[in-house]
Amino acid sequence: MWQEKDNKLTRTFKFKDFSEAFAFMTRVAFLAEVHGHHPNWSNVWNTVQIELTTHDAGNTITEKDYQLAADIDKLLA
Amino acid sequence: MWQEKDNKLTRTFKFKDFSEAFAFMTRVAFLAEVHGHHPNWSNVWNTVQIELTTHDAGNTITEKDYQLAADIDKLLA
Amino acid sequence: MWQEKDNKLTRTFKFKDFSEAFAFMTRVAFLAEVHGHHPNWSNVWNTVQIELTTHDAGNTITEKDYQLAADIDKLLA
Amino acid sequence: MWQEKDNKLTRTFKFKDFSEAFAFMTRVAFLAEVHGHHPNWSNVWNTVQIELTTHDAGNTITEKDYQLAADIDKLLA
Repeated sequence: MWQEKDNKLTRTFKFKDFSEAFAFMTRVAFLAEVHGHHPNWSNVWNTVQIELTTHDAGNTITEKDYQLAADIDKLLA
Repeated sequence: MWQEKDNKLTRTFKFKDFSEAFAFMTRVAFLAEVHGHHPNWSNVWNTVQIELTTHDAGNTITEKDYQLAADIDKLLA
Repeated sequence: MWQEKDNKLTRTFKFKDFSEAFAFMTRVAFLAEVHGHHPNWSNVWNTVQIELTTHDAGNTITEKDYQLAADIDKLLA
Repeated sequence: MWQEKDNKLTRTFKFKDFSEAFAFMTRVAFLAEVHGHHPNWSNVWNTVQIELTTHDAGNTITEKDYQLAADIDKLLA
């Protein structure tokens, strides 16, 4: 589940291996381009950590972050 | 299933949408780079068609093609 | 340059190797998702062939195709 | 340039936009799969930060890290 922490919406995703993790990242990248809203994110092997915050709103969590988070969750549904 | 046709090993894959299809293509691209053996392939929206043949062996199907096909199938297991 | 042929806007792109070709395809995929308009395309090693047509308009070339083509060209500018 | 810091080989890469940054990440992902050696890395918009270390060698910098770094640099040559 997404957690709110330090004005960021964060969630960590685990996959079977790097290939599956990076394929997920590619799909999140599509969403980011469509939303015009991009994550702060990191990857190590099978783990992807996503942080969402709105820079233009003084680095707070806004509706843009909740909407992108919801669309990311749909990838895994 | 893969089919042998005109000295090519071919299979068509269907996905939910373009995002899922392209994520699959990214994983196949990883395999292609690791195998040092690359597909002839095409994509339209949610459909990916892969053709495998070995150029260096006069465009015939070789062990390289069967091995890449087997690893591609594992992505969907 | 893009060519009009059989009611399709087509262009073939050549790159140094597969890695560079697929990175280009990833960027075209971003554009396709943003435009909500997707190519018919194929790849063999360092070569990417793109065909653009509008299915919803009876498989003719429309403004959607010209706009996507223009944005694809910007990737290489 | 790559820097050695806290037993990690690190380098930060800047691109024109997210699309160009993620295309680079895709190419680095190919290298990681081919090398069988994967980065710790993060991305924010047009910036990619890569950290290389060898977990199996007690999180120290090894020849594996230098080799992957050298191949990553070739992508930008």
